[in-house]
Amino acid sequence: MANPASAAGAVPRVSPFAASRGLADDVVEAFLAVRSETERRAKPLTPEDQMVQSMPDASPVKWHRAHTTWFWEQFLLARHSPGYVGFHPDYAFLFNSYYVSAGPRHARAERGLLTRPGAEEITAYRRHVDAAVVRFLKEADDDALAEMMPLIEAGLNHEQQHQELMLTDILHAFAQNPIAPAYDTSWPFSGPHTGSGWITLNQGIHTIGHQGDSFHFDNEKPAHRVLVGPVKLARGLVTNADWLAFMDDGGYRDATLWLMDGFAAATSEAWEAPAYWRRKDDGWQVMTLGGLRPLDPNAPVRHVSYYEADAFARWSGKHLPTEMEWEVAARAGHLDDAFGVAWQWTRSAYAPYPGYRASRDTLGEYNGKFMVNQFVLRGSSLATPARHSRVSYRNFFYPHQRWQFTGLRLADYGV
Amino acid sequence: MANPASAAGAVPRVSPFAASRGLADDVVEAFLAVRSETERRAKPLTPEDQMVQSMPDASPVKWHRAHTTWFWEQFLLARHSPGYVGFHPDYAFLFNSYYVSAGPRHARAERGLLTRPGAEEITAYRRHVDAAVVRFLKEADDDALAEMMPLIEAGLNHEQQHQELMLTDILHAFAQNPIAPAYDTSWPFSGPHTGSGWITLNQGIHTIGHQGDSFHFDNEKPAHRVLVGPVKLARGLVTNADWLAFMDDGGYRDATLWLMDGFAAATSEAWEAPAYWRRKDDGWQVMTLGGLRPLDPNAPVRHVSYYEADAFARWSGKHLPTEMEWEVAARAGHLDDAFGVAWQWTRSAYAPYPGYRASRDTLGEYNGKFMVNQFVLRGSSLATPARHSRVSYRNFFYPHQRWQFTGLRLADYGV
Amino acid sequence: MANPASAAGAVPRVSPFAASRGLADDVVEAFLAVRSETERRAKPLTPEDQMVQSMPDASPVKWHRAHTTWFWEQFLLARHSPGYVGFHPDYAFLFNSYYVSAGPRHARAERGLLTRPGAEEITAYRRHVDAAVVRFLKEADDDALAEMMPLIEAGLNHEQQHQELMLTDILHAFAQNPIAPAYDTSWPFSGPHTGSGWITLNQGIHTIGHQGDSFHFDNEKPAHRVLVGPVKLARGLVTNADWLAFMDDGGYRDATLWLMDGFAAATSEAWEAPAYWRRKDDGWQVMTLGGLRPLDPNAPVRHVSYYEADAFARWSGKHLPTEMEWEVAARAGHLDDAFGVAWQWTRSAYAPYPGYRASRDTLGEYNGKFMVNQFVLRGSSLATPARHSRVSYRNFFYPHQRWQFTGLRLADYGV
Amino acid sequence: MANPASAAGAVPRVSPFAASRGLADDVVEAFLAVRSETERRAKPLTPEDQMVQSMPDASPVKWHRAHTTWFWEQFLLARHSPGYVGFHPDYAFLFNSYYVSAGPRHARAERGLLTRPGAEEITAYRRHVDAAVVRFLKEADDDALAEMMPLIEAGLNHEQQHQELMLTDILHAFAQNPIAPAYDTSWPFSGPHTGSGWITLNQGIHTIGHQGDSFHFDNEKPAHRVLVGPVKLARGLVTNADWLAFMDDGGYRDATLWLMDGFAAATSEAWEAPAYWRRKDDGWQVMTLGGLRPLDPNAPVRHVSYYEADAFARWSGKHLPTEMEWEVAARAGHLDDAFGVAWQWTRSAYAPYPGYRASRDTLGEYNGKFMVNQFVLRGSSLATPARHSRVSYRNFFYPHQRWQFTGLRLADYGV
Repeated sequence: MANPASAAGAVPRVSPFAASRGLADDVVEAFLAVRSETERRAKPLTPEDQMVQSMPDASPVKWHRAHTTWFWEQFLLARHSPGYVGFHPDYAFLFNSYYVSAGPRHARAERGLLTRPGAEEITAYRRHVDAAVVRFLKEADDDALAEMMPLIEAGLNHEQQHQELMLTDILHAFAQNPIAPAYDTSWPFSGPHTGSGWITLNQGIHTIGHQGDSFHFDNEKPAHRVLVGPVKLARGLVTNADWLAFMDDGGYRDATLWLMDGFAAATSEAWEAPAYWRRKDDGWQVMTLGGLRPLDPNAPVRHVSYYEADAFARWSGKHLPTEMEWEVAARAGHLDDAFGVAWQWTRSAYAPYPGYRASRDTLGEYNGKFMVNQFVLRGSSLATPARHSRVSYRNFFYPHQRWQFTGLRLADYGV
Repeated sequence: MANPASAAGAVPRVSPFAASRGLADDVVEAFLAVRSETERRAKPLTPEDQMVQSMPDASPVKWHRAHTTWFWEQFLLARHSPGYVGFHPDYAFLFNSYYVSAGPRHARAERGLLTRPGAEEITAYRRHVDAAVVRFLKEADDDALAEMMPLIEAGLNHEQQHQELMLTDILHAFAQNPIAPAYDTSWPFSGPHTGSGWITLNQGIHTIGHQGDSFHFDNEKPAHRVLVGPVKLARGLVTNADWLAFMDDGGYRDATLWLMDGFAAATSEAWEAPAYWRRKDDGWQVMTLGGLRPLDPNAPVRHVSYYEADAFARWSGKHLPTEMEWEVAARAGHLDDAFGVAWQWTRSAYAPYPGYRASRDTLGEYNGKFMVNQFVLRGSSLATPARHSRVSYRNFFYPHQRWQFTGLRLADYGV
Repeated sequence: MANPASAAGAVPRVSPFAASRGLADDVVEAFLAVRSETERRAKPLTPEDQMVQSMPDASPVKWHRAHTTWFWEQFLLARHSPGYVGFHPDYAFLFNSYYVSAGPRHARAERGLLTRPGAEEITAYRRHVDAAVVRFLKEADDDALAEMMPLIEAGLNHEQQHQELMLTDILHAFAQNPIAPAYDTSWPFSGPHTGSGWITLNQGIHTIGHQGDSFHFDNEKPAHRVLVGPVKLARGLVTNADWLAFMDDGGYRDATLWLMDGFAAATSEAWEAPAYWRRKDDGWQVMTLGGLRPLDPNAPVRHVSYYEADAFARWSGKHLPTEMEWEVAARAGHLDDAFGVAWQWTRSAYAPYPGYRASRDTLGEYNGKFMVNQFVLRGSSLATPARHSRVSYRNFFYPHQRWQFTGLRLADYGV
Repeated sequence: MANPASAAGAVPRVSPFAASRGLADDVVEAFLAVRSETERRAKPLTPEDQMVQSMPDASPVKWHRAHTTWFWEQFLLARHSPGYVGFHPDYAFLFNSYYVSAGPRHARAERGLLTRPGAEEITAYRRHVDAAVVRFLKEADDDALAEMMPLIEAGLNHEQQHQELMLTDILHAFAQNPIAPAYDTSWPFSGPHTGSGWITLNQGIHTIGHQGDSFHFDNEKPAHRVLVGPVKLARGLVTNADWLAFMDDGGYRDATLWLMDGFAAATSEAWEAPAYWRRKDDGWQVMTLGGLRPLDPNAPVRHVSYYEADAFARWSGKHLPTEMEWEVAARAGHLDDAFGVAWQWTRSAYAPYPGYRASRDTLGEYNGKFMVNQFVLRGSSLATPARHSRVSYRNFFYPHQRWQFTGLRLADYGV
C-alpha cells in the first residue's frame, strides 16, 4: 500500500545526494523537499488547530513547525554561518525540546499555552530560516558541505520524525473534540489487507544494526552479531477482526492475560478497545484523520499500547517477536507490511546495543537518554514520511502509549 | 478614575429601559450594546489567543463568546421563539457552563482542547443568534416583552460578567508566556491614587441587600436587617507601597501571620509577591493587560488572594471588613474607590442571606450552589463593564485565587 | 442520655477549683482526673491499635497520649519548673502538633510511621510527666498557682479535646478493617430518641459568646451583640429514619440538592450513605465503637459531612441554623439533645468574632489560624468528655469531613 | 563474607531432601527450619514495629509472617489435606498478596491499617498452620509427598523471599523515624572489601538459565543458548569510596550523565546520595539495620537505584553488564562477591526467556506478570537467607527503587 502521508510526492524522486549537479544543488533540493513536506502537512490546519496540546506527550503543530526550524538555526546557522542573526531572541528558549546542553527550555507540558507567536509568525520564521539555510548552502564549498553532511542529514531526518508526530498529535487532539473534525477527508481508513501464514527462522548467528556510512541514528549502532531463533514470525499484521475476537472473549477484563502494570493501566484508563474506537448503536467506529469512520475488520489494528499487544499475544497463545528476530526476518524479505502501515511493537525493551555510547555533543542527547522504560517498535507507519523507513530503524514508546500508529505482528516459539 | 474597560463607550448613555421609543427599541439597543462590547473586548485577540485555557479556572475567550451566545439561544430563543433553529446541534453540549438542569456539558477543564469551532465560526454563531434575538424582540408585543424582561436582564448581566472574565482569563494566559504579550498597550497601569484616613460606623441596625424591583442577582436578596459596628473602615485601598512594606518585613515567610490553609497555599505555590509581579534586576515589574510594566507604588495592589489579604491585615494590626460593614459604609458614600478599581475582599464567607432559596428553574443554579468555601468581594474592578456595579453586588472567589483584579481595604475594630 | 464516654465517672464530682482544701489539692485532683481519663480511653487498645493512622486527618492514639503529655512538658514544666529534665530529647520534635512557634515538628501525615517509642514507652512518658507536674503543683504557692491557672485549664481542656479525637480516630481506623473490631462491646448504638416540633425565635438583639472569667477558648470571645431571628429551630435532631427517606428519594444522586463542591466530593468519594453505614443483604448496618450493629432508625444520624447536612436541609425545604441562632436557642433552654449526642453542623463559616485577635504567645496558635474553610459545629457528642460542653463552645471541621460524631438539626425561615 | 542474616544457622546443614531417614522427616525438618528462620527474623521487633507499612512498596512484618502462612494454608492444606479447617475465615482475604486467581484481596497499600489481627494472633496463626502442615506431611506417603514436592519447595522458597523483604521493609520504616532505631546492634556495617581488576569474556555461545530438575523459579527457564561477549566484567563491586568520587564530581547534578526518566526521579525525590545516607557535620552516616553508623568507604555501595547505577557507570566510562554476561562470568567462577553482599543491577530489562510461558495455575502468577518495566538483578545480598542463592536466579525491581540491598559491578565493552 502506498504511504498516504507522502502521496503528494513532494520528495524528489532522484537520490537527494546524487552528484549530478554539484552537491549544493542536491542538498538544497533535499532540504526544500523536507521543509515543504512539513508545511504540506500543516496546511489543512487552522491557527487554532496548530496551537492545541491535548496531552503532555503531544505537542502543538505550530510548535513542531517552529522546533524543527530552531534545529536548523541552532545547530547549522548559529554554529557554521558567521553573521547569521536569529529570527527572535526568545525562540531558542521557546522551541528547544529537550537538549539540556543547548540551554534552558520552556516547559514541555505548557507548549499549548503559548498563543504567540502565532501560526503566521511561525510561517515567517520558517521562511527566514529557509532562506538563510539555502543561501548558506549555496555559498558553501564542497568540502565544507561534505563535513556538514552528517548534521544536515540529521536535521532532515529529525524534521521527518516531527512530520509523523504532527499527524499523530493532531489526531489525538481531534479525537478529544465531540464534533470529530477531519484532518483530510480523503485519508485512507481501510486496508491494506495483510498477509497470513508464518515464516520460520532457524537458529543462527546474524548481524543486526546499521552497517555502512549511509544515514542512520546512533541507536542503530554498533552493528553486532546476535543468536536468533528458532522462531516463527507471522507474515502479516494482526487485524481489527482478530482484535474483535479478543475483545469478544473478554480480553480486556481477564487480568490473567495481562502484565500487572498493564492491567493497572487498562483499569485506571478504562480501556475496552484500542484508542479512538467508539462504540455506536450500529457497531464500532474509529476516529481517524479522515474523521469518524466505520471499523474495517480486515485492516490492521492500530493505536494499541504495548500492554494491549502483549495481552493479545498471550491470549493468542503466541508472543511478540524480539527486535532482533524482526530485523533478521525483514532483512530476509519475509515480512508483509513491514513498512508504511503500522509501527510494530516488539518485546524488546529499548536498550543500547553492546558498547553503544552517546556522543558527547548536543546531538548525543538524541537517543541515548531515552533508553529505559520504553519498548522498541519496528517498521514504519502510514504517517511516516517517504524515505524515512529503514530495516535497522528503532522507534520507541512507553508501554502505555497508544496515540501513535502502533500495531503488532505475532511470533511463535513453539517451533 | 474612569473604567478603562468601558472607555470606548459602546453602552448607551440613556437608561436602556426608558420608555422613550417603545420598549422593544430600548431593549434591542441595550442588547446590541452589551453584545458589541463583548466583541470589542475580543477584537485585539488572535484566533490562537481566543483558544487558550491556561488553567481550569479560566476559559478561552472564544468559549466566553460562545457560551454567552448559547445563553440567549437556550433560555430565550429555544423557549420563547417558536420555530427557532439552533445554529449547530452540538453547541448546547459544548457551551453550557454548569447548568446541570440544562443537560450534559463538555468538561470544564478541557475547553482549551477544542480547536473547532474556531473564532470565525463563533463570530458567525454570534451573528446568527443576534439577528434572531433582534428579530424576535422586535416582533414581540409589550406584554410579552415585559414578562421576559427578567430573563433578558439576566442575559445582559450574565454576558457582562463574562466580559470581565475575558480580560482576567487572557491576562492569566499572557502571563504564562515568556514573551509577555500586551492585550492593549494603552491599558492604564498606574493610578488611581487612593484616599487615606478612616471613617467610623457606630453600632446600629441597618438594612442590607437589594431592595426594589430593579435588576439584581438572587444572592442579593432578601434584603434584611443587620447589626453593624462599631468599626472603622479605611477610606482608601491598600497600595503597592503598603504591600512592599509587608514583603520587606518578611510577610510571606512568617507563618504566624497566616491562616494555616493560607500558608500551605503560599508555600506550595511559592508565593513571594502578588500574582504577576516579577522581580527584575532594577526592581519589580508587573504583568498587565498593557504588557510588562514597572510597578507603581501609589496604585492600589491587585491580584492578591484572600489568604494574602488576610495576612496583610493581620500584619497591619487590622482586619478585613465584613460585607455588611462594607455595604453600610458604601451606601453612606464614605468609601473612595469602591467601584471601578479593584474588587475588595471581605472577611465574609459567601453564604445565603437569611431565608434565601434558589429558584427551582435553571437560572436558580446561578448563584446558590456556589455558597460554600468562597469569600465575598465587594465593589467592582477596572475590568468590570460600565453599568455593572452595584452597592449590593456580591462577587465571590475561593480564598487561594488571585487571577482576578482583587485588592483590599482595611477595617479596625479597636474603635 | 448519659454520655457513655464519661460513664466511668473518673472526673471528680465537686468543682475542681473549689477552694475547700487549698488550691493545689484541687488542681492536682483535676489534673489527675483528666490524665487518667485519657488512659481509661486507651485501655481497650492493643499496641498496634494505638499506632495506626488511618488517614492524615487522624492521629494514632499513642500520639494523642504523647502529644497531650508534651503539652504539659512544653508549656508548664519547661517554662515554670526550673531544673525539670525532659523525658527524651526527641519528643518535642515528635509530639508537637502544629505550634510553629514551639519549633519544628514531625510531619503530621507520617505519625503512623513511628513504631517507636511504643505504647509502653508512652505510658512511662506520661508517668514521668504526671509525677513532675504533681510535684510541681504541690510545691507551688497559691499566688503562682493562680497565675498559672489559665495555662493549667488550657492544658486540661486541650487534653479533653484529644480524648474525643482518640475515639473518633480509632473508629475510623477500625472501620477500615474488614474484620470490624469493636472498641467496647457495651458502646451504646441506639438512642437517644430525640424530640420533635419547633421553637420560634423572634427578631431581637442578643449577646453571644463567652462572658465572665471561667474557662473558655479564645474563639468564644469577645462576647458581642447580634441581631437574630425571626427563625424557627427544630427541637430535636435529624434521625436515621429521616436520612433513609432522603436516601430513598435519591438524595445522594440529585445534583440540584447539593452545593457544587459538595456534589463533587460526594461523587469522587462515592458517598451513598453516611460514613460507616454498610449495606448488607438484610438492611443497613453501622460500624460503631461497639462493632458492626444494625441501624437504629430512631437514633440521631451521625457521621454526616456539612455537604450532606446542607443537601438534606435543602431536600427538606429547610436550612441549617446559624451558630448565633443555635446559641440563642440553647441559652434559652429550647433545644433537646444539644449536648452529649452529636455535634450539630451550623451554616456559619468558622470566623473570628468582631475584633478577635489571637494572642501572640504560642497558645495563640490554638484557634485563630484555623478560621477559614471550616464550619462551626455546636453542642457536643457522645464522645465528648464530661465537663467539656459549653453553650458558647465552637467546634469546627471542614465541610467534607465526616469521621467525627457529627449530626444536624434544622432551621426554618419561613416563619 | 558470611551472610549475617543466616548467622544463627537455623537451616539444617544436611541437604533437606537427602533420603537418609525417609522423605517426610527431611521435608518436615526443612519446613521447620524455614519457618523458624522467619520467626527468628521477627523476634527483635515490637508489635508496633511489625505493623508499620512505611510505603506502598513495603509490607508490615506481621503481614509477611501471615502471608507466608496463608500460602501454606491456601496451596497445600486447603487443596491436599481433606478436613483442614482454616484458622480464620477472613485471613484468605487479608493475606493474599496478588494472586488474582486465588480470589479478592485486601488493598496492598492499606496493609499498614490493620491493627488486628495483632502480632500475637499471627504467632498463633503460624503455630496452627505449622502443626497442621507437619501433621499432614508426616501422614503423607512418599508418592504423595514426591508429587507435592514442587509445591512444597515453592512454599519454602517463597517464604525465604519474604524473609529478605522483612529486613528491607523494616529498614525502610526505621529510616523514617527520627530516632533511628536499630534492628540488631550487631548487624555488620562495614566490609566486605571487594576485589579489583577485570575478567574478560570472549565472544562465544553459552547456555544460560536453569538446567535440570532441582528447585528453580519458572522465570529461570527455559535454559537457552546466547551469544555473549566480547566484554570485560569487574571482579569486584563498586564501593562507597567510588561512589563518593561520583558525588564529589557533581554526579547527582549533571543531567547529561543520566537517563531522562532517571534524572526526573532524582530531581523530584531530591536524591543527592544513596538511600539511607545522612549528611552529618562530621561526614556521612548510613542508616543500617544496626542503627546509624559512620560510612565505611571500602564497603560495597548499597541502596542505589538502577538510575543511579546507570549514571555512575556512564560517569565511569563503563556500562552495567547484561544478565547473560553476569551469569556466564559467574558460572565460570570469575566474580568476587557475587552472592551474599548486594544484589547487582544489570542492564537487562526483566523479560521472559524465549518461549517462556507462565503456567496456568495460580502459582503461574508468580513471576510472569511482572515482566515489564523492571530490571534484573543478579547474585544475592547480605539479607538473603542461606540456601536461597543461585547462579541462574533472577531478581527484579523497578529502576527507581532503592530500599533493597542493591549495588552494582561494572562492565567494559572497550575490549
